[in-house]
Amino acid sequence: MACVVQKFGGTSVGSIDRIRNVARRVKAEVDAGNQVVVVVSAMSGVTNQLVEYCAQIAPLCDQKEYDSVVATGEQVTSGLLAIALQELGIPARSWLGWQLPLRSDDAHGKARILSVETAELRARLDAGEVAVVAGFQGLGPDGRVTTLGRGGSDTSAVAMAAALDALRCDIYTDVDGVYTTDPRIVAKARKLDKITYEEMFELASLGAKVLQTRSVEMAMKYRVRLQVLSSFEDVPGTLVCDEDEIVERQLVSGIAYSRDEARITLVKVADRPGVAAAIFGPLADANVNVDMIVQNVSEDGSTTDLTFTVGKADLNRAIKVLEDQRGTLHFERLVPDSNVVKVSVIGVGMRSHAGVAQTMFRTLAERGINILVISTSEIKVSVLIAEEYTELALRALHSAYGLDAG
Amino acid sequence: MACVVQKFGGTSVGSIDRIRNVARRVKAEVDAGNQVVVVVSAMSGVTNQLVEYCAQIAPLCDQKEYDSVVATGEQVTSGLLAIALQELGIPARSWLGWQLPLRSDDAHGKARILSVETAELRARLDAGEVAVVAGFQGLGPDGRVTTLGRGGSDTSAVAMAAALDALRCDIYTDVDGVYTTDPRIVAKARKLDKITYEEMFELASLGAKVLQTRSVEMAMKYRVRLQVLSSFEDVPGTLVCDEDEIVERQLVSGIAYSRDEARITLVKVADRPGVAAAIFGPLADANVNVDMIVQNVSEDGSTTDLTFTVGKADLNRAIKVLEDQRGTLHFERLVPDSNVVKVSVIGVGMRSHAGVAQTMFRTLAERGINILVISTSEIKVSVLIAEEYTELALRALHSAYGLDAG
Repeated sequence: MACVVQKFGGTSVGSIDRIRNVARRVKAEVDAGNQVVVVVSAMSGVTNQLVEYCAQIAPLCDQKEYDSVVATGEQVTSGLLAIALQELGIPARSWLGWQLPLRSDDAHGKARILSVETAELRARLDAGEVAVVAGFQGLGPDGRVTTLGRGGSDTSAVAMAAALDALRCDIYTDVDGVYTTDPRIVAKARKLDKITYEEMFELASLGAKVLQTRSVEMAMKYRVRLQVLSSFEDVPGTLVCDEDEIVERQLVSGIAYSRDEARITLVKVADRPGVAAAIFGPLADANVNVDMIVQNVSEDGSTTDLTFTVGKADLNRAIKVLEDQRGTLHFERLVPDSNVVKVSVIGVGMRSHAGVAQTMFRTLAERGINILVISTSEIKVSVLIAEEYTELALRALHSAYGLDAG
Repeated sequence: MACVVQKFGGTSVGSIDRIRNVARRVKAEVDAGNQVVVVVSAMSGVTNQLVEYCAQIAPLCDQKEYDSVVATGEQVTSGLLAIALQELGIPARSWLGWQLPLRSDDAHGKARILSVETAELRARLDAGEVAVVAGFQGLGPDGRVTTLGRGGSDTSAVAMAAALDALRCDIYTDVDGVYTTDPRIVAKARKLDKITYEEMFELASLGAKVLQTRSVEMAMKYRVRLQVLSSFEDVPGTLVCDEDEIVERQLVSGIAYSRDEARITLVKVADRPGVAAAIFGPLADANVNVDMIVQNVSEDGSTTDLTFTVGKADLNRAIKVLEDQRGTLHFERLVPDSNVVKVSVIGVGMRSHAGVAQTMFRTLAERGINILVISTSEIKVSVLIAEEYTELALRALHSAYGLDAG
């Protein structure tokens, strides 16, 4: 019997009526003769409320306690959906991260999945029961609750699909698929029928919130057929798949942006070997991810300015870590800047075509938009610009790459 | 080093500011040189909201899922209080029911505690860490989350105190002690300095919401010194202790009432041996507690009317169970009545003095209050009356037994 994993995001389970709706969608899959594992997020708004509680008590709180607090949102939804399924006559039970268990490492707040035990779950699926798994949560090596980072329920779903060798992993959300860019900003954005794992991975990494990056990474690794669908409308979604399944390839498939970044400039850092390690080592130890890095050419030969970006949520922690290291680092000033946006163009076509970056730089220059930092990879070009230019930049680039809908 | 258990109820942790306040109270106990275990309830209103969610989806929902949903309230508070303690420089961690584990039986929704494992907890207390235990929750034999019934955090606290052989178990709540009766109804109610375990047990069983019945039962069994105190004021509370610690004994110590009961009358049930078992067996199987039972004298020799009370929350379930058994029971009609209140007078002095019940019946009769059902035990007399007479009955009885404050 084929197994299908369905994942429903926060807005899809945002009210009791919507949870009932989800139960009906699950029932349709059961009626179609499939074994079904459902992965749920917290009801929309709940996680934010819980995060806010933690932050009110301590802006830099113990991540173990944070995880224990915020994981409750998914626990509630999983129980409620199991009840709703039972009301429709479908045997169902909820599974918490520690009950499966879904084991993760100990990077609390953004833990990585290590393994999923499925023996008992499989037996119950075989007995005709639907499994409702609380997403976003795992069991750490120390027996504490971990969470997988914002959007982590997507990764829970893909991990379940991989562990169960599922036919499909359907991600139901409040949009009906993956778009060339954010349709709330660019009215001419188009829905993609298919997108490659690689492109989806970059889109997600670079700000498209439709899927958590790790979920795509994991889907790519285990070749899980991932579909992004609307919870509310019965329309075809977007399939994330291998490159060779896609016939019509574009040079650029999508344009992503992220307002979640903040820029830190360390002014007049000693320009000597080992200084980068001295800066980024402690940040890594404090679990702060650093993204783009630019080191200016030293003017006086002894000091340099170093600019890099971190997640906005990590900015305070990063500043604290760096200030604590001031005695070692000898920088003159630390200049944080939260009013930035990272805009990225993505496409596997870039591998074989030059000029994609050039088009981006020219288009932005024509609009008078100053580029603060650039970073590139095989299939994307990212620039950091002032946040106020977000809409202007996205619309201009969407046209420049010929992505506008007819 | 002495260990103290402190329990804080829902209103005591009802906001972030109040959680900070609780942290300061815990700190005072730590500063006094004690090891501290804190047991917390859900923030006030949270459990009701979660119960409401379950009820909206299914009035008679799966109690396993119900438990998993409603246990989240305490999980949130335990994490938040641990963070608040850390902010005051006190090492602290939260403990969930399944993490200790606090093992219970499988009576989901009102499970009984079987054991508490404390080895790891003790080691951490010895290392100077405060333990913040999520109250109300346990781990069932099947690895599912259980809850201990409304007010179950009191029982969690006493169980922790018993398991750790604690010096005291302080129950912090929104009232400042145990009163002769509800001071919101009877202005002349007096706070008791001390009360016996037995009386407290009856008061709690019979509706005084200040402590969960099982917590008193367990405190009595393990001789845990239980104190009821205000979270908000620094005033002496009420000590629950052995009878011989109390010098001035009253005939009646307190008057309790409960609006949580509902009456069911089965009209014209077959009057033959085995009928009571046929009625109450299935109710017990469905986890419905039956309290007062009255069987009328049969008029025609073949049928009888049977009246009994169940918890209001169980009324729908009880009705369903009885209707399902209709084929076997052959009753003519089932008459439910939720508009009743149980009023009880309690006192260990009753053991040696007659006339306590007589005073009750006469006092109610003088006010024209009809008694629907009577039940008595060694140290209490309970009557079921129409709910509209609650206030009148309480005030009249409080005066009649000489309990009014000077």
